[in-house]
Amino acid sequence: MNGAESLVRTLLGGGVDVCFANPGTSEMHFVVALDHVAGMRCVLGLFEGVVTGAADGYGRMADKPAATLLHLGPGLANGLANLHNARRAAAPVLNIVGDHATYHRRYDAPLTSDIEGAARPFSDWVRTSPDAKTVAADAAEAIVAARTPPGRIATLILPADTAWNPAVGPAPLPPIPARARVADTAVTEAAAMLRSGAKTALLLAGAALRAPGLELASRIAGATGARLLVANAYTRMERGAGRALIEPIPYPVDQALPVLANVQQLILVGAKPPVAFFAYPDKPSVLTPPDCRIFRLAQLDEDLLQALEALADAVGARKHQPALAPHDPPALATGKITTEALARSIAALIPERAIVVDESVTTGRDFWRFTRNSRPHDWLKNMGGSIGYGLPVATGAAVACPDRKVLCLESDGSGMYTLQALWTHAREKLDVTTVLFANRSYAILRHELANVQAANPGRIALDMLDIGHPDLDWVGLARGMGVDGARVTEMDGFNRELEAALRRKGPYLIEVVL
Amino acid sequence: MNGAESLVRTLLGGGVDVCFANPGTSEMHFVVALDHVAGMRCVLGLFEGVVTGAADGYGRMADKPAATLLHLGPGLANGLANLHNARRAAAPVLNIVGDHATYHRRYDAPLTSDIEGAARPFSDWVRTSPDAKTVAADAAEAIVAARTPPGRIATLILPADTAWNPAVGPAPLPPIPARARVADTAVTEAAAMLRSGAKTALLLAGAALRAPGLELASRIAGATGARLLVANAYTRMERGAGRALIEPIPYPVDQALPVLANVQQLILVGAKPPVAFFAYPDKPSVLTPPDCRIFRLAQLDEDLLQALEALADAVGARKHQPALAPHDPPALATGKITTEALARSIAALIPERAIVVDESVTTGRDFWRFTRNSRPHDWLKNMGGSIGYGLPVATGAAVACPDRKVLCLESDGSGMYTLQALWTHAREKLDVTTVLFANRSYAILRHELANVQAANPGRIALDMLDIGHPDLDWVGLARGMGVDGARVTEMDGFNRELEAALRRKGPYLIEVVL
Repeated sequence: MNGAESLVRTLLGGGVDVCFANPGTSEMHFVVALDHVAGMRCVLGLFEGVVTGAADGYGRMADKPAATLLHLGPGLANGLANLHNARRAAAPVLNIVGDHATYHRRYDAPLTSDIEGAARPFSDWVRTSPDAKTVAADAAEAIVAARTPPGRIATLILPADTAWNPAVGPAPLPPIPARARVADTAVTEAAAMLRSGAKTALLLAGAALRAPGLELASRIAGATGARLLVANAYTRMERGAGRALIEPIPYPVDQALPVLANVQQLILVGAKPPVAFFAYPDKPSVLTPPDCRIFRLAQLDEDLLQALEALADAVGARKHQPALAPHDPPALATGKITTEALARSIAALIPERAIVVDESVTTGRDFWRFTRNSRPHDWLKNMGGSIGYGLPVATGAAVACPDRKVLCLESDGSGMYTLQALWTHAREKLDVTTVLFANRSYAILRHELANVQAANPGRIALDMLDIGHPDLDWVGLARGMGVDGARVTEMDGFNRELEAALRRKGPYLIEVVL
Repeated sequence: MNGAESLVRTLLGGGVDVCFANPGTSEMHFVVALDHVAGMRCVLGLFEGVVTGAADGYGRMADKPAATLLHLGPGLANGLANLHNARRAAAPVLNIVGDHATYHRRYDAPLTSDIEGAARPFSDWVRTSPDAKTVAADAAEAIVAARTPPGRIATLILPADTAWNPAVGPAPLPPIPARARVADTAVTEAAAMLRSGAKTALLLAGAALRAPGLELASRIAGATGARLLVANAYTRMERGAGRALIEPIPYPVDQALPVLANVQQLILVGAKPPVAFFAYPDKPSVLTPPDCRIFRLAQLDEDLLQALEALADAVGARKHQPALAPHDPPALATGKITTEALARSIAALIPERAIVVDESVTTGRDFWRFTRNSRPHDWLKNMGGSIGYGLPVATGAAVACPDRKVLCLESDGSGMYTLQALWTHAREKLDVTTVLFANRSYAILRHELANVQAANPGRIALDMLDIGHPDLDWVGLARGMGVDGARVTEMDGFNRELEAALRRKGPYLIEVVL
């Protein structure tokens, strides 16, 4: 058995059975080993940002890591932006990065680079295997690193000769650290805050946003009068009919401040203190009022469900009814395309158990309120803020959950970063419906231009926000990669196309001209 | 004057008057400043790999840096692979990377990352400006760093508040280090080697591959019986009719070894010792024979022309006639499309002073010998080995040389990494003809699979090398981004399309189905 085969057997033994790949020469032995060991699903991406983004989507939905297979430093570099997003989402990802053979590195061949240096700013764990005999044990540790709560980025660098030289065999998996229990003192403190009479809110993140956590939080809120809040972005929220209601903190600072204005006490359940996405001259970085008391009940890597259970017990909320959303979607919108009309029709049509991957940016500002009463679904958002996450994350979510429809709400500016994902949708026949909002600009930057108070933007500045001239033809781009699609210019066409696409299996793209 | 304006004025004062940009909120003040100061050409890319690759192509052709404008750590990360290529090509590039405002960083907002850490493995110079008053002086130093021979990657990180706070004004440019003269002792030693009677070759790189350097080297070779060699990749070679002939060292190790087998002495003129691109089991890393004496006449950052002049004088070669290529292109090929037929027709049609950007990989193995006698042209190759360099480098070359035709020879596998460049071709109406070789596979990896002696590749392995299923429709992709094109399946059609495209101004894409 060579190092490559010991790697694949160790991965499978550790529950890693999906590999998103864009391999090159230095990874050829790993690729060949995949055929010698049954059980690994290998999915090719035509660009590494697709590969790492797919691993993010897979990790969020499967609650375990996929592997990525990347080609030396530049191959890793191409995947870093979506690793940044995955890391911020606490999605588990295990990167396998090939390198030159150990003895070849000193010749400084063209593809040589400092791979560990490139990996470190975007990884929680980085290691280079020194020889074939250590590959299996290193891979086992990498799996544990990726699976350590709440979900981490592990990057294992494998010089080519560690793949082709003889190895001893697969390595057993060391124990995976469990989520730490939240201390009783923290629960007691939070309970006292909730009983104090001060205006209190719980800010939820991570596992607290799955149905059981939300329900417990809703019981606590009902029993104590606290509000439930969630940041503008989240890894995965179970919402829609039958799920507990929660209020979002809007992205724009001017809208976020009033939402938090009356909060005297904020209890963090896996969340970080709410701050502005960007700094702007004369706007605050911190979104809570200056005298707000912020208390951390539980960190993201702790057992959030246990923390909420204990808190519910402490405030006697277990029997309190949660405030669940009724199934009451809006009617299909007709007429002209507006962001509100799109929100209404999407809310009307979201299928049961759909996975919504949302990179709609400015077009999606009305989605929240209208989809609250849709059929139950999961909603995924970009946690790292690096655009180009949508199409790849949809790829990985569809691989993780082949029995569920993925609805990818994508923007033209963001979609262009990683449009190669559409080819993988086609090749793997993934059940992804992409709705592509074509406003032909970096519309968010038009708002931001005002926010940063940059005076008198001229022609050059406005040109940099304008991605028309020429207009992108998204139906043509999708067809060029094997995904069929249609362009719609009014709501009746949109409703018809979306309804049909959601009913069918397989990839499809609807370009919505705004 | 704010920091942003002091930056733009300093850049213009330092000769940096082109900016390839993909900005976001943190760069809005820089974007706005571009309108307040006349003279900066700003070119938008829809993905950062396009932006940095364009800066590479610009730097190679303009012999001075363009600026890039990138959005925080992930924006830089998306551009790193082509920065790797630019750095290996010794192309000067000045990156401006926006960051959160200094006071906002500690809140760890979603886009926060270790930008310096990400930049360092792919930059020669990295600095973060601490406040608006230092931006101009830091930018001046960054220009000097980028312009330091032979051409370097400088990365300047500018927190958003350094853009909007008051500054003192632009900074003057410190002196740019000149290329060091090569020591007389080195010239004397090289001359003695050339006169020794041993079989000697000169291996040229960098500026030695422009017409004057090649001509001097050819005189030296003629006078001494030495051979002239060049590595498989080079930043920019002036070749074709009227340019001195030189032998390439092939990429495949098995073909490179015989070329170098009889070389007893190798004199490096800006080049590095020749090594294999990858290591393979049972193939050497070093391509020269074990007893070959390797002597470095000049480093890449030294004055290569002066070194060759001195060497020509030392061996009395100044009056020896160089071996120049006659203008004698092959006839247009007809019939079935083969790599040789493509080479013949391209060689027949290359326009005078064309800039050929070559990422043809496996399809291009016959190009060298047939284009040797074409009209004079510049040929650019990928120095870093990270694929996806072609379309962006063509972008930058066309911006640098608007009066010259750019012929981009691109492959389907490589082209998909940074296909967004086509949109910039369309928007800027760049005079780039792209010939897209569609073999629908990572064909090079099929060869590499044999080279690495990975036994019995199975279905999964072969699937990872196959980028058909579905086939990419490159004409559709190009049209989707505003570039017109045509698909050809035999040589008559190819000849007709290429002739017409080269005659016209503006972007066009020809998909060649192999």
